[in-house]
Amino acid sequence: MDFAYSPKVQQLRERVTAFMQNHVYPAEAEFERQVAEGDRWQPTAIMEQLKDRARGEGLWNLFLPDSELGAGLTNTEYAPLAEIMGSSLIGAEPFNCAAPDTGNMEVLVRYGSEAHKRQWLEPLLSGEIRSAFAMTEPGVASSDATNMQATAVRDGDQWVINGRKWWTSGACDPRCKIMIFMGLSNPDGPRHQQHSMILVPMDTPGVKVLRPLPVFGYDDAPHGHAEVLFEDVRVPYSNVLLGEGRGFEIAQGRLGPGRIHHCMRSIGMAERALKLMCERALERTAFGKPLARLGGNIDLIAESRMEINMARLLTLNAAYMMDTVGNKVAASEIAQIKVVAPNVALKVIDRAIQIHGGAGVSGDFPLAYWYAMQRTLRLADGPDEVHRAAIGKYELGKYLHKA
Amino acid sequence: MDFAYSPKVQQLRERVTAFMQNHVYPAEAEFERQVAEGDRWQPTAIMEQLKDRARGEGLWNLFLPDSELGAGLTNTEYAPLAEIMGSSLIGAEPFNCAAPDTGNMEVLVRYGSEAHKRQWLEPLLSGEIRSAFAMTEPGVASSDATNMQATAVRDGDQWVINGRKWWTSGACDPRCKIMIFMGLSNPDGPRHQQHSMILVPMDTPGVKVLRPLPVFGYDDAPHGHAEVLFEDVRVPYSNVLLGEGRGFEIAQGRLGPGRIHHCMRSIGMAERALKLMCERALERTAFGKPLARLGGNIDLIAESRMEINMARLLTLNAAYMMDTVGNKVAASEIAQIKVVAPNVALKVIDRAIQIHGGAGVSGDFPLAYWYAMQRTLRLADGPDEVHRAAIGKYELGKYLHKA
Amino acid sequence: MDFAYSPKVQQLRERVTAFMQNHVYPAEAEFERQVAEGDRWQPTAIMEQLKDRARGEGLWNLFLPDSELGAGLTNTEYAPLAEIMGSSLIGAEPFNCAAPDTGNMEVLVRYGSEAHKRQWLEPLLSGEIRSAFAMTEPGVASSDATNMQATAVRDGDQWVINGRKWWTSGACDPRCKIMIFMGLSNPDGPRHQQHSMILVPMDTPGVKVLRPLPVFGYDDAPHGHAEVLFEDVRVPYSNVLLGEGRGFEIAQGRLGPGRIHHCMRSIGMAERALKLMCERALERTAFGKPLARLGGNIDLIAESRMEINMARLLTLNAAYMMDTVGNKVAASEIAQIKVVAPNVALKVIDRAIQIHGGAGVSGDFPLAYWYAMQRTLRLADGPDEVHRAAIGKYELGKYLHKA
Amino acid sequence: MDFAYSPKVQQLRERVTAFMQNHVYPAEAEFERQVAEGDRWQPTAIMEQLKDRARGEGLWNLFLPDSELGAGLTNTEYAPLAEIMGSSLIGAEPFNCAAPDTGNMEVLVRYGSEAHKRQWLEPLLSGEIRSAFAMTEPGVASSDATNMQATAVRDGDQWVINGRKWWTSGACDPRCKIMIFMGLSNPDGPRHQQHSMILVPMDTPGVKVLRPLPVFGYDDAPHGHAEVLFEDVRVPYSNVLLGEGRGFEIAQGRLGPGRIHHCMRSIGMAERALKLMCERALERTAFGKPLARLGGNIDLIAESRMEINMARLLTLNAAYMMDTVGNKVAASEIAQIKVVAPNVALKVIDRAIQIHGGAGVSGDFPLAYWYAMQRTLRLADGPDEVHRAAIGKYELGKYLHKA
Repeated sequence: MDFAYSPKVQQLRERVTAFMQNHVYPAEAEFERQVAEGDRWQPTAIMEQLKDRARGEGLWNLFLPDSELGAGLTNTEYAPLAEIMGSSLIGAEPFNCAAPDTGNMEVLVRYGSEAHKRQWLEPLLSGEIRSAFAMTEPGVASSDATNMQATAVRDGDQWVINGRKWWTSGACDPRCKIMIFMGLSNPDGPRHQQHSMILVPMDTPGVKVLRPLPVFGYDDAPHGHAEVLFEDVRVPYSNVLLGEGRGFEIAQGRLGPGRIHHCMRSIGMAERALKLMCERALERTAFGKPLARLGGNIDLIAESRMEINMARLLTLNAAYMMDTVGNKVAASEIAQIKVVAPNVALKVIDRAIQIHGGAGVSGDFPLAYWYAMQRTLRLADGPDEVHRAAIGKYELGKYLHKA
Repeated sequence: MDFAYSPKVQQLRERVTAFMQNHVYPAEAEFERQVAEGDRWQPTAIMEQLKDRARGEGLWNLFLPDSELGAGLTNTEYAPLAEIMGSSLIGAEPFNCAAPDTGNMEVLVRYGSEAHKRQWLEPLLSGEIRSAFAMTEPGVASSDATNMQATAVRDGDQWVINGRKWWTSGACDPRCKIMIFMGLSNPDGPRHQQHSMILVPMDTPGVKVLRPLPVFGYDDAPHGHAEVLFEDVRVPYSNVLLGEGRGFEIAQGRLGPGRIHHCMRSIGMAERALKLMCERALERTAFGKPLARLGGNIDLIAESRMEINMARLLTLNAAYMMDTVGNKVAASEIAQIKVVAPNVALKVIDRAIQIHGGAGVSGDFPLAYWYAMQRTLRLADGPDEVHRAAIGKYELGKYLHKA
Repeated sequence: MDFAYSPKVQQLRERVTAFMQNHVYPAEAEFERQVAEGDRWQPTAIMEQLKDRARGEGLWNLFLPDSELGAGLTNTEYAPLAEIMGSSLIGAEPFNCAAPDTGNMEVLVRYGSEAHKRQWLEPLLSGEIRSAFAMTEPGVASSDATNMQATAVRDGDQWVINGRKWWTSGACDPRCKIMIFMGLSNPDGPRHQQHSMILVPMDTPGVKVLRPLPVFGYDDAPHGHAEVLFEDVRVPYSNVLLGEGRGFEIAQGRLGPGRIHHCMRSIGMAERALKLMCERALERTAFGKPLARLGGNIDLIAESRMEINMARLLTLNAAYMMDTVGNKVAASEIAQIKVVAPNVALKVIDRAIQIHGGAGVSGDFPLAYWYAMQRTLRLADGPDEVHRAAIGKYELGKYLHKA
Repeated sequence: MDFAYSPKVQQLRERVTAFMQNHVYPAEAEFERQVAEGDRWQPTAIMEQLKDRARGEGLWNLFLPDSELGAGLTNTEYAPLAEIMGSSLIGAEPFNCAAPDTGNMEVLVRYGSEAHKRQWLEPLLSGEIRSAFAMTEPGVASSDATNMQATAVRDGDQWVINGRKWWTSGACDPRCKIMIFMGLSNPDGPRHQQHSMILVPMDTPGVKVLRPLPVFGYDDAPHGHAEVLFEDVRVPYSNVLLGEGRGFEIAQGRLGPGRIHHCMRSIGMAERALKLMCERALERTAFGKPLARLGGNIDLIAESRMEINMARLLTLNAAYMMDTVGNKVAASEIAQIKVVAPNVALKVIDRAIQIHGGAGVSGDFPLAYWYAMQRTLRLADGPDEVHRAAIGKYELGKYLHKA
């Protein structure tokens, strides 16, 4: 439990904070404007400028623990930086630290062949292209990932892929060139060895992006969350990652760090929501007093502070355990923050909405949009329920040997 | 506490239910399609058809207690009907029972002059035009309605109106022809006698609908929630309702019944969300079991049932008190349901979202949209906090005389 | 849903209220004093005086729907009276309406033979003796009543009873003369036909009251909650109620009304806790203001008012359904109030404790004792969890036929 | 945020844990037996044996940061040890680490004169005597400590003390020889300089221990929480600590560390409650399954694990801040754990009670007693409400300079 911010981290925190304040927050309105005008599904100039600038400052690929290819930070070191980035919905991409690319790049670093790396990892690391991850399916309860039914059938030196995926985030963006598809390749294998992960270029014949899915009323353009149809999609057999039937093996590795990034960002978002809440509470007056001094409002501010602090410490502790004892031993801790972080963010954002009145649910403040985004995180990587069941099982496991 | 459904009500319930099942629910997708194609801010053909049909069946103006002009139902009698209508976001308008028209019509019935009634009430009652209510302002905490700053200054036989309003629901719809504006007319009067309600036709020069406000990304087209600018808007002095400085007097009357309708509808929406939740829980399978049999899901179904039942009984009881002892004596009960109904609906809808997984936050189910709409009701007529303060004050009042 | 208080009920409410105010509340301290001095396990003189007085006023056996033997009130009519009695822990016994006698008397009225009635029902109805109910066992999870392991084995014209029961409330009181024992008599029968209810006089050889069980440190003397050992206890075969293996059949009937009485009383207790809370909030001053005006205290008063009102309406509605459609159809509603009533009471009492500061957890106010008593009701008749599972099952049942 | 357990701490943790397992847990039943037999208000032999043993092992005065007089541990180092001690209600005293002695000894170390130390600190450090702290008063809202009305009036070289205190914990124990009294000495001073702390030997004429106050139904014998009357109690003027009117100055220092110990212990108690909960959930069977596999029980176990982990991290972080930046800068963090720790403990214990069924509220498990003790901690050092108001104020303070 030594997760003090080292001087290196402290310095990076200051640099990332400065970048956010000087460049990202001021760009939020412009980003929204550029998306709103013309075709929503085109990348914005402002984001490319932010990326250029951050890369120029050396604030690039901070998420990647590999010190050759990325910043070489541990989870504990990256956590406070991801938190800062999370304080804006456009805060991670400038640093090339946005999902799902981060998880996909980690997969390619760990499980990709040299050819995979050359073709896909390099342009991803340089921010030239983006990527998607196709796992969840509309037709089954994806909380149980073994339900996945889209198929990848070997035909000589090719895979033939069929099926329907959704919530394939980022697939609507024209910069997205590659997808990691996960599907049923070995239906006769043991339960967790039936699925493979396969690289599918977006322009492969038979890949059809059917529609962007809205989240509440937000389309999250130009990123978007796509429903994708795969009809007799053929890719080389060598596009399989790690090996046939080893999809779950990769998923365990991918989702661990991938999703802890979400948690860190959730805390950053909650922290900014609390800031907005305090400012509004001091600014607006009703019944002769600032809102901050009315009824239980101050209690809600206090609750938010406590919940954020606890969620941050829990996340840092999970990061620290991942770094020191590994994802497997830290499995319960990782599951814990996946439940805690978005739920805390939702509570804080909801209170901030309430104190903003009608402005809170409108587009004049980012709160309602943040709420929608955080709400998806209670589902995105397995619902709360699955994580709680896992945590409970680990806990009971301590006593089972005695029975 | 006699709020059994009388035979008359029971029969109306059956007729409204049948209408919803045969005509409204099946029209939901078509309504959405018609809004999505072309200009979102035009009325839909399907809604006009639904209105024709409902009027034809005599299911019209059910909300209006006046038996000459409306259905002559008490609040207790109307409550179960409003609940059924509330189960669809397009469920009230077919019966000419949609907000804000209902509240506005009630105001005109009670406080309008004969001329007002002829010009505005009649076309509203017949469903030819729609209306808006301009009260909330962007620049002040509207939870304290005395904060309102838009002005209405008498100039001879005219009012000159200036200021900015928002959340003027319905003002984006071209069918909206008349607005009830509430603003500061008598700044030197006692605190609750400074504001007047004035009829302002939408086409009056100086009235500018600036933009529709989104709610969690939803624009609620073609109805919409508008920000409206009033620049030297001139209307006849006789357009004032009831009299100068009597705006709050009307508001008390208007918001009482007006908002209890919202509560009834919230319960109907919660009830339908629970239905969707149960169906999904039985339909989808994970880890070898229907979701209904996994972990605490059944507890959440049970909680939802209990909360809905309690919210319904509380609302019926408030309606019954309004009918028997009047809005003033029932003030605490009315405040109670304004807190309880949307909060219960939000809890139930959120659980339904969770059990639907990604589908729940998407547009494939109405749940996320419902959530957004219910969330606004925790603010729309004064925030929860204001109602709770009122309820607490009534409660403490019972003991103050003894001190 | 017609649960208005009829004139008859209204009059009884006034009489019971007057009795509570004039006789019961003023006797609380004296009751406590009499219990504290000398042997705690002797009946108090003050209670016998209260009983005499209430019987003299005709306020006697109000719970019993039988109009020959009792007051002939429906559940709907009795509910508001039980609520008033529940506002004091010694409030039900004066009216001969205290558990477990009420449930036991109902069982005897419905299922007892003429001999049973003569020997046990008559002295119970007259308040001469008291009774106990022996069902829960220490060795098994009694939430699943079919777990019961104490045995009743027929031996000619006798039952031979062995086993251990606990939470046999009232068995410590020397006035307690008769017990209804429920145990395993037909182990080979279908799951719900293996247990019988048998009358066991307290003075039967082999019956050993081992100890009173404390509840949060309170012994509830002189009533008490006993652990009882049955060692080769022999009673006539004819002591069986209704018939061999029909214990669950009786239990269903007994627990329905028996426990709804608890719910009614819980609401009365919550109501009085809210009263204490308001009075204290107005009386005590901190930081220059009465507690009622500090922070979120008024919100807690408002929450309490809403929760109590909803719990009362839910209970009245369940009572009304029991009266009109029967316990079986009202099963979900009965389960609902068993969850809601004690949980609401606990929340309100806990808030009242908090506003009383240290006095709240002490013996100077009844709040901590009430808390302890209400806490047991979340377990006493099956835990919340069992009721919620039942409610959820009923709810899902509405959709199962469609699947 | 470096609160890893150092090797020194790790070793102490092992030794304290071993002592608890080998000596304290096995002594719990015997302690209860010795208290129950004969006079409850006499110290027990078993506790003296435990003290001898712990002192013999060098596990003594671990709480005291002074390395001459105590163990010289920082708050961060002591925290994990206090947590372990907190897992038993008799777990702190064996190590001479029990409240209120710990706080009183810290006061004497920091603010006592040489004479005070010789007379009172030495026997306290050696465990020969015990002590009490007299601050809270029955007649006023003690949440606002400036309400205190008991007076200390200088009369030459003496103080004359009058007034009534309660919740003077430990004053019922005959080993208690000295009290720190806090009262109004300088009524004309500024608000926080009106009260003094004065040493009052228990045997001073005029000191009357009126009664032990029960907590729920527990008397906490032989320790006890006393109501104490001071009638013309005379002590030397030199008994004042630090100086006239400086009581609050001391209180700030005393309550900071004093109460963080409570928080640490609360976490230990919650942890043990979770252990009991898991064991029971695996042990008991209903409806054909262990309770752990029924309904939402596993979710409650998971919630408990998350809440405990967060509370522990928050407490460690507060301890770390106290050690590194001081109590003043850490004021919000200290207030946070005072709210969080007992509330988390209460939630976990309540769930553990529920899963134990009737056994949970009885004396057969320590859960109900623990619940009662934790409940007082939401009041003991200022209610939750006061801490939340302080936390909210600190938070808002960050933005006030900008307004």
